[in-house]
Amino acid sequence: MELTLRDVAEGVGAEIVGDGDERVRRMARIDHAEPGDLTFLYHRDYKKYFPDTRASAIIVGEDFERTREDIVYLVAKDPKEAFYRTLIGFFTPPVVLEGIHERATVDPTATLGADVALGANAYVGARTRVGDGAKIFHNATVLEDVEIGAGSVLYPGVVVREGCKIGKNVIVHAGAVIGADGFGYLPPSKETGEAHVKIPQIGDVVVEDGVEIGANSTIDRAAMGSTVVERDVKIDNLVLLGHNVSVGAHTAISGQSGVSGSTKIGARCVFGGQVGLAGHIEIGDDVSIGAKTGVSRSLLKPGAYFGIPAKELRTTLKLEAHFRKLPEYERRIKELEAIVESLAGKRDS
Amino acid sequence: MELTLRDVAEGVGAEIVGDGDERVRRMARIDHAEPGDLTFLYHRDYKKYFPDTRASAIIVGEDFERTREDIVYLVAKDPKEAFYRTLIGFFTPPVVLEGIHERATVDPTATLGADVALGANAYVGARTRVGDGAKIFHNATVLEDVEIGAGSVLYPGVVVREGCKIGKNVIVHAGAVIGADGFGYLPPSKETGEAHVKIPQIGDVVVEDGVEIGANSTIDRAAMGSTVVERDVKIDNLVLLGHNVSVGAHTAISGQSGVSGSTKIGARCVFGGQVGLAGHIEIGDDVSIGAKTGVSRSLLKPGAYFGIPAKELRTTLKLEAHFRKLPEYERRIKELEAIVESLAGKRDS
Amino acid sequence: MELTLRDVAEGVGAEIVGDGDERVRRMARIDHAEPGDLTFLYHRDYKKYFPDTRASAIIVGEDFERTREDIVYLVAKDPKEAFYRTLIGFFTPPVVLEGIHERATVDPTATLGADVALGANAYVGARTRVGDGAKIFHNATVLEDVEIGAGSVLYPGVVVREGCKIGKNVIVHAGAVIGADGFGYLPPSKETGEAHVKIPQIGDVVVEDGVEIGANSTIDRAAMGSTVVERDVKIDNLVLLGHNVSVGAHTAISGQSGVSGSTKIGARCVFGGQVGLAGHIEIGDDVSIGAKTGVSRSLLKPGAYFGIPAKELRTTLKLEAHFRKLPEYERRIKELEAIVESLAGKRDS
Repeated sequence: MELTLRDVAEGVGAEIVGDGDERVRRMARIDHAEPGDLTFLYHRDYKKYFPDTRASAIIVGEDFERTREDIVYLVAKDPKEAFYRTLIGFFTPPVVLEGIHERATVDPTATLGADVALGANAYVGARTRVGDGAKIFHNATVLEDVEIGAGSVLYPGVVVREGCKIGKNVIVHAGAVIGADGFGYLPPSKETGEAHVKIPQIGDVVVEDGVEIGANSTIDRAAMGSTVVERDVKIDNLVLLGHNVSVGAHTAISGQSGVSGSTKIGARCVFGGQVGLAGHIEIGDDVSIGAKTGVSRSLLKPGAYFGIPAKELRTTLKLEAHFRKLPEYERRIKELEAIVESLAGKRDS
Repeated sequence: MELTLRDVAEGVGAEIVGDGDERVRRMARIDHAEPGDLTFLYHRDYKKYFPDTRASAIIVGEDFERTREDIVYLVAKDPKEAFYRTLIGFFTPPVVLEGIHERATVDPTATLGADVALGANAYVGARTRVGDGAKIFHNATVLEDVEIGAGSVLYPGVVVREGCKIGKNVIVHAGAVIGADGFGYLPPSKETGEAHVKIPQIGDVVVEDGVEIGANSTIDRAAMGSTVVERDVKIDNLVLLGHNVSVGAHTAISGQSGVSGSTKIGARCVFGGQVGLAGHIEIGDDVSIGAKTGVSRSLLKPGAYFGIPAKELRTTLKLEAHFRKLPEYERRIKELEAIVESLAGKRDS
Repeated sequence: MELTLRDVAEGVGAEIVGDGDERVRRMARIDHAEPGDLTFLYHRDYKKYFPDTRASAIIVGEDFERTREDIVYLVAKDPKEAFYRTLIGFFTPPVVLEGIHERATVDPTATLGADVALGANAYVGARTRVGDGAKIFHNATVLEDVEIGAGSVLYPGVVVREGCKIGKNVIVHAGAVIGADGFGYLPPSKETGEAHVKIPQIGDVVVEDGVEIGANSTIDRAAMGSTVVERDVKIDNLVLLGHNVSVGAHTAISGQSGVSGSTKIGARCVFGGQVGLAGHIEIGDDVSIGAKTGVSRSLLKPGAYFGIPAKELRTTLKLEAHFRKLPEYERRIKELEAIVESLAGKRDS
């Protein structure tokens, strides 16, 4: 990469102190950096590494004491933001997959856009359409009648079941499963012959543009209609979205959270890890839910919630503080009982 | 599909108002239906769509006002039940996979029944026997000495390890892993050289007829003997069953629940999502366990349980109501203390 | 296997009563054993099967009444330990995969050590180095610039993303994903155009020697630097380790637990199932965390912790006991209020 420090500085609005023509190869942590690397210093814990870092250049704040002369400084108002902007703007790694592998299998009725890449043993089913520049990695499976939008990436082992629609620039991480049957049965009864009867899951999954889905997560197809993940939703690993769930735009769901069937989640929500939502409820826009929370009722008001069952965050924190005082309360009740008994005794005497 | 409305009406015991010879193509939600579709109306929220629905026919209750003449009515006593029976009886989608793909790999010592379907890159190991009509999708792996019963379906990416037994008409959803090693070690000690020593997991998994296993779930092989999933058990996505677990017939386990090793679960139980069970305990028949419950002791009595740790549902609900009153209790204790102090003071004065 | 009972007895330090030349084929539970099997009896529940077991030999304690003459006894001081040592020493099953399958795909720039085995549809990427005797099963994917140490096993469907380092004698169970992108974004704001901006995840995962990783677990690559799993760590199924997590040597993490980004876990810790750890915290050495615990702050002191949020185990157990007494506390407060009212009334009267 013929990238100079001047390019970076101009790109992120930093000022150069030193040789702007110097080339930079990659970003690295200050304690790991080697010559040719650009490093950064926004956390004081790492200041101790500055005298010895082998980096060629460093992003620092304006008040940083630039005691070394053998390193180029990129001086930024907000060095943390400059670091992220450098990383995003100049060091986003390419997704390495090109061409159609000879061991990929493409149904003759499928259509592939320009510059589609298919890995070894990738499978693309009948009538499926893959948009321009999309990449489907090794051992991934896309069944029939699927749409994969332009620029989307399906990592190894991903499975997309029949009829699902994946938008543009979607990233699906390894092992995620989109469109498995929802969990729906008529329960065992005399009418069913005392066994479950599977309710056909004839809907699909619609994943809109810019969504990212974590490794080994599962998003079930709707019983009828669509399970919907709106644009720019970010889903971490091992998350479960049940059938007919909908997730509003820009919502972020952390790892191992699960959403039961038909629940509707608003826009711009943020969920911690291992959150669980009951089915058939509604979460409003701009709701934040703390890790491990269990939600059994709708939460329509914007704000922060936490606990099992979910309450407003400050309520749960207050109750938790009281909870820790239970031994004290018992002691105080005991003391009261002793005094009252004594008072009553005296009274009666 | 040459299906007429008369066929449907007769199949589910509904009465036709309109032209029973009209053909019907598929079922659809009332707000999505198009000409040729059969829709249904059992929830009043959807009544508003009736005047404008483009469906050709609609399942309704007996008291429904049939104000339109350009639609055929299927009038049922219980329109919700009629809807499910129609869906199950006439619109269950086929599992689309036929023939042995040229890129499937079958060990020469394996035996395939009649009409077995193997997808691209499916692997069937030595001495494995696949029953009539079973379907093993693309990129699924079945190792050696496995039995797959007739009519079973293994979706893409499924892994069945050596020696496991899958019954008839079992559905294993994409990415599920059956027969991975159980989690068992001699813990680090002087005798083990201060490192874990792996205990060989030489048992297997037995999955009986009619079981359904969700996407990316994992069912570990027994240390010795068998991990057993009895007939008609339904397991949702991302569920973990540890080694030597047994699950009784007709039990349903919701998503992200986990069962530790050697625990025995009875028949006809229903577990919510994200339930956790300790190892070496026993759950009786007909036990219902609420979402997110943590069970550390055996629950032998039929009934509903909830909480961490699990208690009878009504106990947990009662305690939760008290929990919310903790601030009030503290206030009342304070008030008592003030009055008692005053009483005692007066007494002492 | 030409294994005699004398071999076993000598190997585990047991004494033979009967014919030490007899051959033994496998180990089996006492109620399942057949002629040729070695069984064991260390739990009194199984004593009832002794009179009828068809096993050829049995491991028993010194005080066991050896009432049958048609069975060979291996008499051990600690029969349970002898059972495990027999299982580990003589009956560890081989990992059955040999040779390079003709449908494996190996990039021409990859290097394979001696006796490497690659299954059907296994993929090995550019410049990846696979150590001697390593086995990569069917439908597993190893991307470019990966190192797989000697003797390691990757079961079917495993995915290792680019640049990750797997040590020697590591076992990765089916469907596990190593090196997926961490969950990191600039949150939506005016600066980001009101959408998430993905932070490049340019680090890797380092898995040291002797680690075992469960089925469908996911270990994310670092944002920068490495996510580190030290030697002899044991990870169960469906576990999530976020980006830049480090796990100290010999720690064991049970199923469905999750560790958020940048959290540092010490050595020799033991986590129960479904534990959740917040990001950017530290767990010291020798910390034990009970199932379903939620940890939001660092736990540096060795010991046992439990609860949501985590407290010392004995604290949580004590508080739980108080919690169950809430209805009693309310009653006692009510009684006090009645007496005090009566006392105050008398006083005022």
